[in-house]
Amino acid sequence: MEGLWFKEVEQRRRFVIKIAPGESLQRRLAEFAQATGVRHAIIVSAVGSLQDVTFRGIKTGAKLPITAPRIHLHQVQGPLELLGLTGNILPDEQGEIDCHLHVLAGKSSGEVLGGHLLDARVFATCEIVLTELAAEGLLRHLSRTGGVPTVFIETP
Amino acid sequence: MEGLWFKEVEQRRRFVIKIAPGESLQRRLAEFAQATGVRHAIIVSAVGSLQDVTFRGIKTGAKLPITAPRIHLHQVQGPLELLGLTGNILPDEQGEIDCHLHVLAGKSSGEVLGGHLLDARVFATCEIVLTELAAEGLLRHLSRTGGVPTVFIETP
Amino acid sequence: MEGLWFKEVEQRRRFVIKIAPGESLQRRLAEFAQATGVRHAIIVSAVGSLQDVTFRGIKTGAKLPITAPRIHLHQVQGPLELLGLTGNILPDEQGEIDCHLHVLAGKSSGEVLGGHLLDARVFATCEIVLTELAAEGLLRHLSRTGGVPTVFIETP
Repeated sequence: MEGLWFKEVEQRRRFVIKIAPGESLQRRLAEFAQATGVRHAIIVSAVGSLQDVTFRGIKTGAKLPITAPRIHLHQVQGPLELLGLTGNILPDEQGEIDCHLHVLAGKSSGEVLGGHLLDARVFATCEIVLTELAAEGLLRHLSRTGGVPTVFIETP
Repeated sequence: MEGLWFKEVEQRRRFVIKIAPGESLQRRLAEFAQATGVRHAIIVSAVGSLQDVTFRGIKTGAKLPITAPRIHLHQVQGPLELLGLTGNILPDEQGEIDCHLHVLAGKSSGEVLGGHLLDARVFATCEIVLTELAAEGLLRHLSRTGGVPTVFIETP
Repeated sequence: MEGLWFKEVEQRRRFVIKIAPGESLQRRLAEFAQATGVRHAIIVSAVGSLQDVTFRGIKTGAKLPITAPRIHLHQVQGPLELLGLTGNILPDEQGEIDCHLHVLAGKSSGEVLGGHLLDARVFATCEIVLTELAAEGLLRHLSRTGGVPTVFIETP
């Protein structure tokens, strides 16, 4: 089926993670993965609050592939309520752990900002629940069409 | 307990799904369900980017039931970062698979749009993780009060 | 590892919950927990629509701990599409069930509002999927640094 790939995966360990005020979300998640040996995982729940959130949006009207001039970088001091964190942890082509995360964060006004997360610091607390996947055959590498690292599903 | 229904359901297969640039999100998800025989499922994770996103909001001050004049239709060319996709796949009254999806998508400015998803095309990539539920006794049919198809939980 | 705690938890029962139009989301969720004996759980999926949504944001530039004058309260009549509901159910220091929920909701215009949810009434429907966690050693109590109740992970 062109344009569509899928693979059944087994669920393994499930973790509750808490990150303290002032800490880097990305760095602490990577340290968690290192300490537990988690290599394939998805975020299933995240609540808390963030500050110094750096994320990007794609410029309106941009074409593929996504390149630096087609991206709009945002830095918001906040603090912001953490309203959503979705994404996955997968090894990249070098076998290094790579966290691909998208963030949703609420401003004082109640309006919501969000995009592809580069990094953020925890404000009051950050509580994450994560599910490990036994996902042999799942890899992340650069998509030439898309210009971004993306999941590749190996089919037998 | 009036106004509240619940049912314990078993978790079955878990899938990682990838949809390629240019493809229809709704059509490809329906094809996935067809190919795997998945009839009851929930989206647990989705990241990527979208274009030509069609979704609806409910007009401010609208009463029940939700009818066409009480809905506001939006079409956004984007591209937009895909920041959230929640919803379920359930059979409808005719036994056909029906995907009820709500979308959250980030603009170039960092502002977030969202609503009840009608359709969207994948921009750079779209990575979905989905859990099948062994949910006998779960059906979707039209709620006369609400005006929309909704889950009905059969109780013994 | 300072600033980072984690704990492997087992997944137990999974529930589909439906709340009827006009009902309080917070009260009905608490009743569900009472009726089923669920004490530790996370929301994994939620779709539907809401009205009379009360939520809070943190004031721009606020410092820790989060106190009443550093919070901005919002009340939105709507109706709004329910686009995201993340959070957890945990016992507090008195052993009472406490739902910590963050909401994302779409306006007629397609713009998205959100924050820490205080309460909301269901509009047309509300369909929630929730996973119980067998999480001995997980407690919620007040963080003196953060000013908010937060998860504490007991380590052996």
